[in-house]
Amino acid sequence: MDHVTVYAPGSASNLGPGFDCLGLALTGLGDTVTAVKAGAEGVRVARVSDPRIPTDPARNTAAIAAAAVLKHSGERFGLELTIEKGLPLAGGLGGSAASAVAGAVAAQALMRKKLTRDHLLDAALDAEAVVAGRHADNVVPSLMGGMVLIAGMQPLRLTSLKVHGSFYFVLVTPEYGVETAKARAVLPKDVSRADAIAQAASLAALVLGFERGDVELIRDSMQDRIAEPARASLFPGYAAARTAALAAGAAGVAVSGAGPAALAVVAGGHTEPVAKAMVEAYAAAGFGAKSHKARVDRAGARVIG
Amino acid sequence: MDHVTVYAPGSASNLGPGFDCLGLALTGLGDTVTAVKAGAEGVRVARVSDPRIPTDPARNTAAIAAAAVLKHSGERFGLELTIEKGLPLAGGLGGSAASAVAGAVAAQALMRKKLTRDHLLDAALDAEAVVAGRHADNVVPSLMGGMVLIAGMQPLRLTSLKVHGSFYFVLVTPEYGVETAKARAVLPKDVSRADAIAQAASLAALVLGFERGDVELIRDSMQDRIAEPARASLFPGYAAARTAALAAGAAGVAVSGAGPAALAVVAGGHTEPVAKAMVEAYAAAGFGAKSHKARVDRAGARVIG
Repeated sequence: MDHVTVYAPGSASNLGPGFDCLGLALTGLGDTVTAVKAGAEGVRVARVSDPRIPTDPARNTAAIAAAAVLKHSGERFGLELTIEKGLPLAGGLGGSAASAVAGAVAAQALMRKKLTRDHLLDAALDAEAVVAGRHADNVVPSLMGGMVLIAGMQPLRLTSLKVHGSFYFVLVTPEYGVETAKARAVLPKDVSRADAIAQAASLAALVLGFERGDVELIRDSMQDRIAEPARASLFPGYAAARTAALAAGAAGVAVSGAGPAALAVVAGGHTEPVAKAMVEAYAAAGFGAKSHKARVDRAGARVIG
Repeated sequence: MDHVTVYAPGSASNLGPGFDCLGLALTGLGDTVTAVKAGAEGVRVARVSDPRIPTDPARNTAAIAAAAVLKHSGERFGLELTIEKGLPLAGGLGGSAASAVAGAVAAQALMRKKLTRDHLLDAALDAEAVVAGRHADNVVPSLMGGMVLIAGMQPLRLTSLKVHGSFYFVLVTPEYGVETAKARAVLPKDVSRADAIAQAASLAALVLGFERGDVELIRDSMQDRIAEPARASLFPGYAAARTAALAAGAAGVAVSGAGPAALAVVAGGHTEPVAKAMVEAYAAAGFGAKSHKARVDRAGARVIG
């Protein structure tokens, strides 16, 4: 095989109290990387569909991850990547992570030696670290699919969570970007003991709610006390969109990753009133917004051609 | 009916990352309160088996809780309580909470009007607040049985958790007491963001571990980053006992409540090597210690005579 095309799904991380430790792969939004074996060693980027994303292989997450996989395998060939972005830049939907994962899986697919999942994750995490800090909460679900709890980073400890079949997700992306670096710069260094305890109890209740299909548990617990309060000013219109979504029947609403995308959890598939309420709330705040209906992408990154 | 005897189980709270929000009722250790209707209004304490516990009804948790139940019901009779302590004073096994719960349930049992579970909890919480601060993580499991997550305090939001049938618990109590007030005074006001995130992820993993019967999840996650580090000097011998228990096969170890009792989780019933290792570790540190083997008390407080 001398060429391959890999799709990696976008993802929502944090989901409120799961800040920096919970992520969810989503259907219908993802990045696609085609890798072609090329004679000279090294990884090059032939084209990225979004011109704002660098083609410099030292600053492109797909290329960094592919290069890490090649290096780890010890195989010596060159790769030329073509990257089709289905995910927005600085949108909060795990775009840099999906490109990194797709790059790693594409490089792997062209090799004889099969790396472990943890090696692929390491490659993608190294790439993510260059643009967004070393955070696993998008990379892991994008690779593995489903909802994943990052129980620890050193060493990496992962737990796949069940997501009850009754849940749908509404992603609403307002027409402004938020740089991950900026969103991280405003985070508090410390949090009060009371907030730390409430965050822990809420996360435990949230994951149980997703496993059990318990809307009340999600409604009560989907609230972040660490990142969202500190970032409120970065997300104009979000507070109103959250209130509107809950009033329209959403079980819970949170900022997706570093935003600005907002994620609503809806039980039973009646997503339209929630999507409409959120888009209207952003419009009232002066921002256009697009909505997308998703389910859990249970497969994760996969070869599609 | 003019008299009743109520048993309320002891409980372990915190369990590591569930500091101030997780509690577990235990078999084989509990307090018993006998209430007799007496002519004159008001609650009196005829006798407490442990002479260190005040019989002053304004400072005795069983009496305070019973009085709160009477007041809430509007019924007007007097009560005389006899309290048989099966739980140690200042031991970390929810003794003040068990007495409060037993007092509330006994008063309830003698009344015509049936109060809701939340009213009984409020009465016991008011009593617990007098001696140990307003914390629900012992009162709730002692009343309801089982393992309970306190997802929020204002309003009180509770979630019963499954505990997989494979788990046994070893409680080891060294021969020194720790006052709850002192144990709370050393708690940090703030915690680092990293610790808050790790605490949340660990608690989510821990409750999933108990539900699924997953020893690895418990082993990785049963670690408290808020209270135990701050309280280390209050529990001489505990660090060595914890290390010894894990080496002897325990899935996890944590201080029970405000200590000094230590709780080990053991999968499969082979509790003796764990108990022995912990008692020996305390002995090496210069402290006698007693061990108790328990399972989950699933019934909670109940009328026994």
